[in-house]
Amino acid sequence: MVKIKKIRGGVTAPQEFQAAGITVGIKKSKKKDLALIFSAFPAQAAAIFTINKFVAAPILVSQEQIKNPFIQAIIVNSGNANCATGINGMDDAWAMARATAEALDIPREAVLVASTGVIGTPMPIKKILKGINVISQQISRKGSYDAAQAIMTTDKTKKEIAVSVRLEGGEIKIGAMAKGSGMIYPQMDQFSHATLLAFITTDANIESPSLNDMLKDAADVSFNMISVDGCMSTNDCVFMLANGASGVTVKSSKDMEMFKDALNFICIEMAKAIAADGEGATKLLEVRVNRANDNCQARKVAREVSNSMLLKAALFGKDPNLGRILSAVGQAGAEVDCTEVHINDVKIAKNGTIQYKNLGKASRKLSSSEIIIVIDLGIGFSSAVAWGCDLTYDYVKINAKYRT
Amino acid sequence: MVKIKKIRGGVTAPQEFQAAGITVGIKKSKKKDLALIFSAFPAQAAAIFTINKFVAAPILVSQEQIKNPFIQAIIVNSGNANCATGINGMDDAWAMARATAEALDIPREAVLVASTGVIGTPMPIKKILKGINVISQQISRKGSYDAAQAIMTTDKTKKEIAVSVRLEGGEIKIGAMAKGSGMIYPQMDQFSHATLLAFITTDANIESPSLNDMLKDAADVSFNMISVDGCMSTNDCVFMLANGASGVTVKSSKDMEMFKDALNFICIEMAKAIAADGEGATKLLEVRVNRANDNCQARKVAREVSNSMLLKAALFGKDPNLGRILSAVGQAGAEVDCTEVHINDVKIAKNGTIQYKNLGKASRKLSSSEIIIVIDLGIGFSSAVAWGCDLTYDYVKINAKYRT
Repeated sequence: MVKIKKIRGGVTAPQEFQAAGITVGIKKSKKKDLALIFSAFPAQAAAIFTINKFVAAPILVSQEQIKNPFIQAIIVNSGNANCATGINGMDDAWAMARATAEALDIPREAVLVASTGVIGTPMPIKKILKGINVISQQISRKGSYDAAQAIMTTDKTKKEIAVSVRLEGGEIKIGAMAKGSGMIYPQMDQFSHATLLAFITTDANIESPSLNDMLKDAADVSFNMISVDGCMSTNDCVFMLANGASGVTVKSSKDMEMFKDALNFICIEMAKAIAADGEGATKLLEVRVNRANDNCQARKVAREVSNSMLLKAALFGKDPNLGRILSAVGQAGAEVDCTEVHINDVKIAKNGTIQYKNLGKASRKLSSSEIIIVIDLGIGFSSAVAWGCDLTYDYVKINAKYRT
Repeated sequence: MVKIKKIRGGVTAPQEFQAAGITVGIKKSKKKDLALIFSAFPAQAAAIFTINKFVAAPILVSQEQIKNPFIQAIIVNSGNANCATGINGMDDAWAMARATAEALDIPREAVLVASTGVIGTPMPIKKILKGINVISQQISRKGSYDAAQAIMTTDKTKKEIAVSVRLEGGEIKIGAMAKGSGMIYPQMDQFSHATLLAFITTDANIESPSLNDMLKDAADVSFNMISVDGCMSTNDCVFMLANGASGVTVKSSKDMEMFKDALNFICIEMAKAIAADGEGATKLLEVRVNRANDNCQARKVAREVSNSMLLKAALFGKDPNLGRILSAVGQAGAEVDCTEVHINDVKIAKNGTIQYKNLGKASRKLSSSEIIIVIDLGIGFSSAVAWGCDLTYDYVKINAKYRT
């Protein structure tokens, strides 16, 4: 078992990474809205993007840039998604990459761009370009905290994490930051696109193809298994940089496994943090599906249940509503036999039939801020886990009032 | 063009149909909860059921019964879905069919059963069987109004309609009643199952296979295109009876077309009424997708947009939120080129780019109780229409408080 040690520092925990987060005035609130991550060494990179057919300009730019051999910087703004902004939006996204490269004195090809915020509003590009000059002077080894703040939109909590792992060749570190909150139902793949943003850094030395494979696999058991509202964003993306500054190369199959475990851990922690901080959410929902016919069916059931509006509302109301769980299971179309359902360790269904005597206990368990629903389909050997949150008045409030 | 004339009377408008609706005490509210539709003549029948893998007991019973050559009665209760009720639930559903047959002195094979309400609660079967004896004495040519009331759950409005159509051989009538409200995202097919219930009667004479084809086609442009909450029920079904009492046989292709038009009209009117009366809804949303690559893509986009939680919340907030429309279009995965989007005749996007100058006007149009969003994908020649409603505080309230 790999020993994963949590450490401080987010994206700047790995060696030779610097970051910063500042206010440039994109948000009316005057909260931080521009973040920069910089690697002193050219880094191998991997990226996954939302599969939404509408993609924001920065996604298109980063899909081009990721083809280049090395990446050294990620520039990210919040407050404006630069989506549905036409040709001007593309110009603005390219201008952000160019300005970042110039300010940091690195090749233009070495910059990734990401944006999150309102769709369909022109970018205040002058403010941003000016901000890029300022932020490139402010990056530091301690800047991860500010950077993680600067990518937040309706997020209530800042999301960052870092770990160290001892491999055969020595210790490496992995750091990450993410934002989520609304329009969260990511389905990301290589060269496709979400408004979940996550940025992962490591000082391990790993080839880009391996990095891509591991990132894709990690996303499939983490980011791609969360839903706040079933709405897929036009801006979702996860970028990962490996700058090799630790001097440790990840190559042996044992090291690969250990690195993979650590990366999965980081991505799952970030994904859960995003689900728990869903717009208006008061509870984190974890749905574990066991004994499904195959992996695909397990994933489908877990996602369908975690995404059921009726179940989300029931959780808010502390109602152990078996009907809404079973109807979501059935909606997924998976093979089912003698289903068992537990809510926080209380059995509420056996053979697909309700266990009345346990409902009172189950209802009391729903006062918890973390709800774990375990569904046993009784058919095969496949499992999957998905995360979501409850549906509250605040979700409606936030999204009825959030302006275009 | 077929001349469809709206008439009074719902399911009892066609000749030789009788109906009733009474209170037997399934609902605590003491509102009507048992409905019966009876045809004096044995009728050809057609049915479609939800494709949810979990199906309620009455669905399984009706799937058996519909194989029989003739149907004469439909017994329906509200307040209890008879789902996740195990073997006892199956016994109860069969008992309802048997009791209805005995009380009406018709063959046991001639009765369809439907239920809607709470999932996972045992049926108060004694009350229901007693009620069946009472209701079979009360059926009348004027009973459609009471029957339509008796199938309501969280519905605010009673849904019934009837039309007359002049065919080559003479006039025929079609009547219908339906209920909807929550857990509304029907996907119905022959021998599969939803908690949308709709019952359609006609005094035309049509062979069962044709009736099935026409009902399936009509559902695909009506009931199967509505969403209140994206949650598919375990109890959805639509039953149709054709008793031939008008003496008019629908056989020529011209008559078939006319009958089909009338049936589509009835189903679309019912579907819209259900969407407009979605739980907590204040607005009916109609999404028209034009110039899609094919019918499947048109339908998928229309459904994805009408089902977007974020867009639903924006409509409640009167926000002409293009981003949420486009991200839902993109989520459907359809081919798109130079998208145009109109909200109640105001163009808010051209070439996928927002039209700022029109947003104020669009926002004002959103005060209307009927919102029509037209999306032109600019690719092909296929169209589809879907219906939904806004997401309000009341939806959350109703579903956080509705008990298991």
